[in-house]
Amino acid sequence: MTDTSLFLAAANGHNTERAPIWIMRQAGRYLPEYRAIKAKHSFWEMARTPELACEITLQPLRRFGLDAAILFQDIMTPLPPMGVKIEFAPGPVFAEPVRSARAIDALRVPGKDEIAPFVAEAIKLIREACPVPLIGFGGAPLTLATYMIEGGSSKDFEAFRGFLRQEPEAAHRLLDKLTEVSIRYLTMQVEAGAQAIQLFDSWAGLHDARSYRAFAKPYNRRIFEALAPYRIPRLYLAVDALHLYGEIKELPCEVVSVDWRAPLSQVRPLLGGKTLQGNLDPAVLLAPKGVIAQEAERVLREGLGGPHIFNLGHGIMRQTDPDSVAQLVELVRRYDRVKVREASAS
Amino acid sequence: MTDTSLFLAAANGHNTERAPIWIMRQAGRYLPEYRAIKAKHSFWEMARTPELACEITLQPLRRFGLDAAILFQDIMTPLPPMGVKIEFAPGPVFAEPVRSARAIDALRVPGKDEIAPFVAEAIKLIREACPVPLIGFGGAPLTLATYMIEGGSSKDFEAFRGFLRQEPEAAHRLLDKLTEVSIRYLTMQVEAGAQAIQLFDSWAGLHDARSYRAFAKPYNRRIFEALAPYRIPRLYLAVDALHLYGEIKELPCEVVSVDWRAPLSQVRPLLGGKTLQGNLDPAVLLAPKGVIAQEAERVLREGLGGPHIFNLGHGIMRQTDPDSVAQLVELVRRYDRVKVREASAS
Repeated sequence: MTDTSLFLAAANGHNTERAPIWIMRQAGRYLPEYRAIKAKHSFWEMARTPELACEITLQPLRRFGLDAAILFQDIMTPLPPMGVKIEFAPGPVFAEPVRSARAIDALRVPGKDEIAPFVAEAIKLIREACPVPLIGFGGAPLTLATYMIEGGSSKDFEAFRGFLRQEPEAAHRLLDKLTEVSIRYLTMQVEAGAQAIQLFDSWAGLHDARSYRAFAKPYNRRIFEALAPYRIPRLYLAVDALHLYGEIKELPCEVVSVDWRAPLSQVRPLLGGKTLQGNLDPAVLLAPKGVIAQEAERVLREGLGGPHIFNLGHGIMRQTDPDSVAQLVELVRRYDRVKVREASAS
Repeated sequence: MTDTSLFLAAANGHNTERAPIWIMRQAGRYLPEYRAIKAKHSFWEMARTPELACEITLQPLRRFGLDAAILFQDIMTPLPPMGVKIEFAPGPVFAEPVRSARAIDALRVPGKDEIAPFVAEAIKLIREACPVPLIGFGGAPLTLATYMIEGGSSKDFEAFRGFLRQEPEAAHRLLDKLTEVSIRYLTMQVEAGAQAIQLFDSWAGLHDARSYRAFAKPYNRRIFEALAPYRIPRLYLAVDALHLYGEIKELPCEVVSVDWRAPLSQVRPLLGGKTLQGNLDPAVLLAPKGVIAQEAERVLREGLGGPHIFNLGHGIMRQTDPDSVAQLVELVRRYDRVKVREASAS
């Protein structure tokens, strides 16, 4: 197996000899070369200019021996064509939160080619230059709805959680529209060349299993089923979701990304044979070298029980030193999973 | 058993005939009579004026048949005498975050009578007028340290999580000081008349079990052990803590407060015989009456396996209608746990 297919092999369920590694938000603010671009352009300029999105996507690959690239965009990318106005300050801020059945019914469901043609362009440019598989992505409907109704980020998302309880039918109509837009947006990414798709359900963990079954699972399932004919690996991320793994296990996806809270060895039996992705605490990358090595090796060891893609448990912190990332990537690349398993078996 | 001792009985491990009920932040912004006081006073004026703190504590008891009162204060109350300046806007904002070993070493550990004499006064006033047991409380050292180092609330507490990884020895010195101050502050509350103590570890769930064992558990244990001679029930709250219950089970406390994410029936076996408190999703109180009844009954049913104090899984939301609280309290008071158990056994 060549190194360039290592990520896809692990994502497709192979218990590879070494764990492939990529890093959530690897193209981002901890990199000085990213900040140099960001100093000259707004977020939307970077996202909507294919050459810039391509350049930012490729930046971390020039520094580190990563096994996958991830498209530079935001989960908000497909929303403005639905008729909402979003700025970044630096988190997303909605000019008008969507808080009524009427506002939901007024949202457009744009056609596949209208949503984000610049993303298709960026993907084509990236694929020409990128030495490793390219992951496309989108936000899960429940997480997109969380931001749309709350109007931005929040500590407890009280407006959104209240809306789900007060107006469940309107919430379902919103989730249905977001699902349809997500299917169009993500199949467009695959057709343009994305070799895997990750669905980010960052706020799923706010909800109990009953709410997840009602408001998240059927929509996530529809998206993953729509991607099935393309035979690309489907990755799912939820944070704070230990209480939801009984539901997540049943989603038709190949990979589940696990946050740093529980060790992979404890999570694996709950997720029934899926490839696990994760789960180093991003704060570890702020620690001295010795701690990074020790904690990364612990994650690698906890991951030995089945297919594992090494990653952080959540996005990299902006104060991270790129040299620490280089150290981490080298360590993961050197870790021979077969040898360690044999040594511990004997 | 009289109704006035119901809360203490359940907190001490008795599987009472009905579940006592109190509500986190029951004295707070969802009540118009609280907002009327707040319109005229700053938070610190309300907290530091015993008559106001007493009045606010008693307000919800005049409306609802609650089984316990909780002192009106904030977990930040004992910190200013250590030498930090905190304002509320409305969340806590530290004038100077504590971010260095030097700043930590400069923190004072005030004597028991210096920390908050106004709290002792308030407790005495409340006890004269309060028909139900009074719960005192404080923040757990890790959670207090989270705010002190971060400088306020935050989405991911990156500064704090980084500090724990970069400066663990300094963090331990801070936690040690906060533990000593907490012991002094909480024993003072009990000596003034508090009949139970709840330790709020709101941000414990940010950490994996190893970090919890290192930075939270030994300090929480010291506090609970210092309270042991008073023979009052000790309550512990952590949010987002399903992955930590193996550790929390071992704390010397009688009650664990459970957030809304996992049902009590699933959590109970993980907490080995402790009384469970919780765990209605606060967002349910924003729903129509029928949904409130259905969800509250579900929580009551899930709690039947052992001692249960009914509460929300987290603080009440400020947009809650007080009439919904009245409905909830009545429903819980009418729910006969013995009869339901017998009916389901036959």
